Amino acid sequence: MRVLGVDPGLTRCGLGVVDGGLGRSVSCVAVDVVRTPVDAALPRRLLQVSEAVDAWLDTHTPEVVAIERVFSQHNVRTVMGTAQVSGVVAVCAARRNLPVAFHTPSEVKAAVTGSGRADKAQVTTMVTRLLRLAKAPSPADAADALALAICHLWREPMRARLAEAEAKAAELARTHRARLAEAAARRRDDRTGTGLTS
Amino acid sequence: MRVLGVDPGLTRCGLGVVDGGLGRSVSCVAVDVVRTPVDAALPRRLLQVSEAVDAWLDTHTPEVVAIERVFSQHNVRTVMGTAQVSGVVAVCAARRNLPVAFHTPSEVKAAVTGSGRADKAQVTTMVTRLLRLAKAPSPADAADALALAICHLWREPMRARLAEAEAKAAELARTHRARLAEAAARRRDDRTGTGLTS
Repeated sequence: MRVLGVDPGLTRCGLGVVDGGLGRSVSCVAVDVVRTPVDAALPRRLLQVSEAVDAWLDTHTPEVVAIERVFSQHNVRTVMGTAQVSGVVAVCAARRNLPVAFHTPSEVKAAVTGSGRADKAQVTTMVTRLLRLAKAPSPADAADALALAICHLWREPMRARLAEAEAKAAELARTHRARLAEAAARRRDDRTGTGLTS
Repeated sequence: MRVLGVDPGLTRCGLGVVDGGLGRSVSCVAVDVVRTPVDAALPRRLLQVSEAVDAWLDTHTPEVVAIERVFSQHNVRTVMGTAQVSGVVAVCAARRNLPVAFHTPSEVKAAVTGSGRADKAQVTTMVTRLLRLAKAPSPADAADALALAICHLWREPMRARLAEAEAKAAELARTHRARLAEAAARRRDDRTGTGLTS
């Protein structure tokens, strides 16, 4: 499976395409950072990111897009721009009927380093090693995009299995509730029946 | 001038097109609310809003798009979705080279009611009256979209004049600083000259 990982941002938006092979083997297809000028108008900047993502989807034809989930605990101004970029990227994917997955930064860090609290340097080191890259991807946004794609490749099978198990459990619960309701209705009928004959 | 006002939202996104006439006269061209299903995936919902906005831009050909500026003080979950919608809408406009303006909720309230702290009912009442509508636009998101368009029509000339004045002032300041620097350089040259002849 081929995944486009996106570390959303206005000033720097990381894009990384990773192929997943047998087991946990992964290989880097492409990685780059889209930059938009800080002094440009916001709609223009968002359009530039949108066009870059469209070009990447055309060139690399990933089967799924994994985007970092944005939290608003951080810097308010930055977060709004980041959220807007993530929305714009999600629409690029949706327009092509590609599935989109959102992963939190700690899910990504945990997937590639084993710790949800790893720092940027550790993530970059692990991404470089896992993808057997000749040199570390730079800036950090590029490494983060690759980490997101790897995280998706490794978590997705587990997530899919979990979703399947949850669906099965929900189905069982529904059946059980239906049987209980049936039994209760039968008891009510029996009682009504008693009432009529008494 | 024709303005498309957008009150961004995932569950309900208000769209309102208003024509500005002489002075402060305004007339309603179209108003509606785009709804997307709460249980649909986020990228799908964003795409639906994007497609609706594209259709409105095709049909009503506004010259500018005014979007409510999102703040992250409120409900964190809602705000992220709202920010994403506003980004997606901004890209729809940018793709057509339409200018985009962002106005804060209090700017909009102040423009149409005279008070930045007006409630939803007051905004709806004033919008209905200003646009001489037979009945109040509903839900509130529809009225808010019209209020945004009116706010833009009324504020824009003042904003443009202010921007022009600021640009002129900056130009004057630049000229003044250049003259000061020139004079300082001349003084330096004079002194160097004196040094050489002494």
